Amino acid sequence: MSARVLIVDDLFPNLKLLETKLSLEYFDVVSAMNGPDALAICEKGLCDIVLLDVMMPGMDGFEVCRRIKTTPTTAHLPVVMVTALDQPSDRLRGLDAGADDFLTKPIDDTALFARVRSLVRLKAMTDELRTRAMASRDFGFGDPLAAAAAETGQNARLLVVDDRRASSERMAGALGQYHCVEVEADPQRALVRATEGHVDVAVVSLDLDGFDGLRLCSQLRSLDRTRGIPVVMVADAGDRDRIMRGLDLGVHDYLVRPVDRNELVARVRTQVRRKRFADSLRESVQASMELAVMDGLTGLHNRRYLDAHLAGLFAESTLRGRPVSVLLLDIDRFKSINDRFGHDAGDEVLRQFAERIRAHTRGIDVVARFGGEEIVVVVPDTGLDGAQQVAERIRERIEAMPFPIHGGTRAIDVTVSIGVAVRLPEDGGPASLLKRADTALYRAKEEGRNRVVAAAA
Amino acid sequence: MSARVLIVDDLFPNLKLLETKLSLEYFDVVSAMNGPDALAICEKGLCDIVLLDVMMPGMDGFEVCRRIKTTPTTAHLPVVMVTALDQPSDRLRGLDAGADDFLTKPIDDTALFARVRSLVRLKAMTDELRTRAMASRDFGFGDPLAAAAAETGQNARLLVVDDRRASSERMAGALGQYHCVEVEADPQRALVRATEGHVDVAVVSLDLDGFDGLRLCSQLRSLDRTRGIPVVMVADAGDRDRIMRGLDLGVHDYLVRPVDRNELVARVRTQVRRKRFADSLRESVQASMELAVMDGLTGLHNRRYLDAHLAGLFAESTLRGRPVSVLLLDIDRFKSINDRFGHDAGDEVLRQFAERIRAHTRGIDVVARFGGEEIVVVVPDTGLDGAQQVAERIRERIEAMPFPIHGGTRAIDVTVSIGVAVRLPEDGGPASLLKRADTALYRAKEEGRNRVVAAAA
Ligand SMILES: [Mg+2]
Ligand SMILES: [Mg+2]
Repeated sequence: MSARVLIVDDLFPNLKLLETKLSLEYFDVVSAMNGPDALAICEKGLCDIVLLDVMMPGMDGFEVCRRIKTTPTTAHLPVVMVTALDQPSDRLRGLDAGADDFLTKPIDDTALFARVRSLVRLKAMTDELRTRAMASRDFGFGDPLAAAAAETGQNARLLVVDDRRASSERMAGALGQYHCVEVEADPQRALVRATEGHVDVAVVSLDLDGFDGLRLCSQLRSLDRTRGIPVVMVADAGDRDRIMRGLDLGVHDYLVRPVDRNELVARVRTQVRRKRFADSLRESVQASMELAVMDGLTGLHNRRYLDAHLAGLFAESTLRGRPVSVLLLDIDRFKSINDRFGHDAGDEVLRQFAERIRAHTRGIDVVARFGGEEIVVVVPDTGLDGAQQVAERIRERIEAMPFPIHGGTRAIDVTVSIGVAVRLPEDGGPASLLKRADTALYRAKEEGRNRVVAAAA
Repeated sequence: MSARVLIVDDLFPNLKLLETKLSLEYFDVVSAMNGPDALAICEKGLCDIVLLDVMMPGMDGFEVCRRIKTTPTTAHLPVVMVTALDQPSDRLRGLDAGADDFLTKPIDDTALFARVRSLVRLKAMTDELRTRAMASRDFGFGDPLAAAAAETGQNARLLVVDDRRASSERMAGALGQYHCVEVEADPQRALVRATEGHVDVAVVSLDLDGFDGLRLCSQLRSLDRTRGIPVVMVADAGDRDRIMRGLDLGVHDYLVRPVDRNELVARVRTQVRRKRFADSLRESVQASMELAVMDGLTGLHNRRYLDAHLAGLFAESTLRGRPVSVLLLDIDRFKSINDRFGHDAGDEVLRQFAERIRAHTRGIDVVARFGGEEIVVVVPDTGLDGAQQVAERIRERIEAMPFPIHGGTRAIDVTVSIGVAVRLPEDGGPASLLKRADTALYRAKEEGRNRVVAAAA
């Protein structure tokens, strides 16, 4: 996977060395010799990953990393810190600043390339979603990027897969301070648990007894229902080949035994944040699409949704020779409610009206606001008699209990008139069906309101 | 990258051999011994890629491939055909059926794994988009999957990068029958051309004089503006290492010299289809999100968008000490237009009203339908005088020309009243600003309509 790599180092020879190495691997290289320049490049969106020297005059690498990771527009960029020292305290400072990994000079090329490729690939998977979610932010749907940058990465549901008791207890102990941890010794059962949902991050030992832990990692990465779960491998330092292979398979991160508790906590936190970021992007895009077919006041579907789905339900009913009915509901004398009690009261009534209708319809029925105080219910697989029963039940429920208005300080009586129609063989499309329901509704109004009238079948 | 690989072969030993090889590489393997079983597995969404034997009793591999690629729910699955024969005519039949590649038995493992990994990675990039687009289809926004399956992959804009005249002319000749082809000998200029847009697929020779063609491929794959362009490499058979490296960098496909014209055409067509599929997914998701903030009748933004953006513009104006103004526009005696000429005429007037307002506002102004026949224009960085001028210009343009109705068979005079207000230091939020504009609008109506009234500053 190709990508634009930003190298940040205050020493020119270091810069050149890394640049040459990465360029030979066909990465596009951008460079900066200090923190502020690096931040500017990140903010302009000119790189996909950052290799960041720790020791720099002025703003050091930790601070640069912290700023990248707390700025909503750059927080998604993977950061690998590079240092001459290999102090656990330094590693931890970097990870605490939000770094995705930590490499020690002199740099091991294989490890470097494997890590860069893995991080770039993981980033690419969410880039598309991120672009969509940013568009949804421009439309005014809230800001998933800002939320992600503020995410602490705690209180996640973790699955630790390890069959060595001492090891799993140690990890569970460290992680349990911040998260809810389940331990599973058996890889098959672990996979089942992960597919059942409710796992945010999996920590998998590669040294399971009689089972290649890498296979479990691979399965977690390939099954539809577990693909979204970040995986962290735990392996012996000597198991380098399998670690590199794991990164290539899409495993997100690894730790080498003996596992440093603080490093474990920091790396898992990074993965929790990553998952929540992807989830919130997905939710944001989904929510904005859903809004397009929702009525803002009642939370019911809108006319656009009704038009799209009624056509489909009508065609399916014709094709399969099954009935489909529609109810057209209209609150009686709604204008006078608005006039006497104000528009806010009218809105309260509409919302509760929608609520009561929803309570007496099924999940497969389509309930949509048709406009004004009219609501349409499409009832698949139901003939005229059945539809009339549904309508009558709703009519009763509306009449039975007064509607609270003005925040519950008073209540008014409301009734509804309902026209019902079923698809007839001669119907060319949903329009004639709706038309008959409308005519029936008109008769219900004429005949004195608060009643159900069915169109002649 | 891990994935679920479906192996289809009528001979058990072949199945087992491939299964073992892929399993050792940590792929998840599913298998089928005939076409119908294979299709069922694909339709259930149980695999990410298909390795398909050509010669099978009953439904042969070509037919299975054709069905996978023409069924909307499976068309996105990469298919690699596997055959004992290596006849150009077979290759072509497979590619014509929509296959993504063609491997010859006995299978070269390195080539197999490189190809499977590359195809799986490319698929993963659009999986997320595909999920979103499918959701948008469920909401009734049209069906990008069906459109993609029906896509012929012709009439694309191709960029051929090759500095050997005979070679480029040959390729341009073959491709020119179906597409619009540009040839570029210089890699730098090719990159510039690609970033300028208007390239659907790039065909890049790896043997450029004094330049590593793979670097151009890598740059095309990593720059933001060219990432979406599929790249096909052309290389000597002996250049296998660079070909594999190219696939690893994200290059989509390759051809070996001497280039078979028909194979070139088939492979490029596959890439054109791939790109159009991704583009249509993107458009579908984007369009459904846009609908959420659009008014269906006028094409203006809706109240939801206005509420989200006015708050932001108001806050920014306060923060930066810059003015922000709003115009509240209401068509005069709109109800009588509806009553006299019908609702359709009312809708025609509203649409043209919106059109004329848009013609006299800037891109940074927010124009939104406030409800009914009221429209709000938010004018950033503009004081009361400037806003009044904008309002007066719009008022004139509405009055100046009658509005055609009934499909242009007649025209009626329309006027508009406009209330204007600017943010005052004492405004706590956008509500008080809108309130003043509303009061000014009320005065404009009182004073005889067809006029602009500004709220006292
Ligand atoms: Mg330094
Ligand atoms: Mg066979």
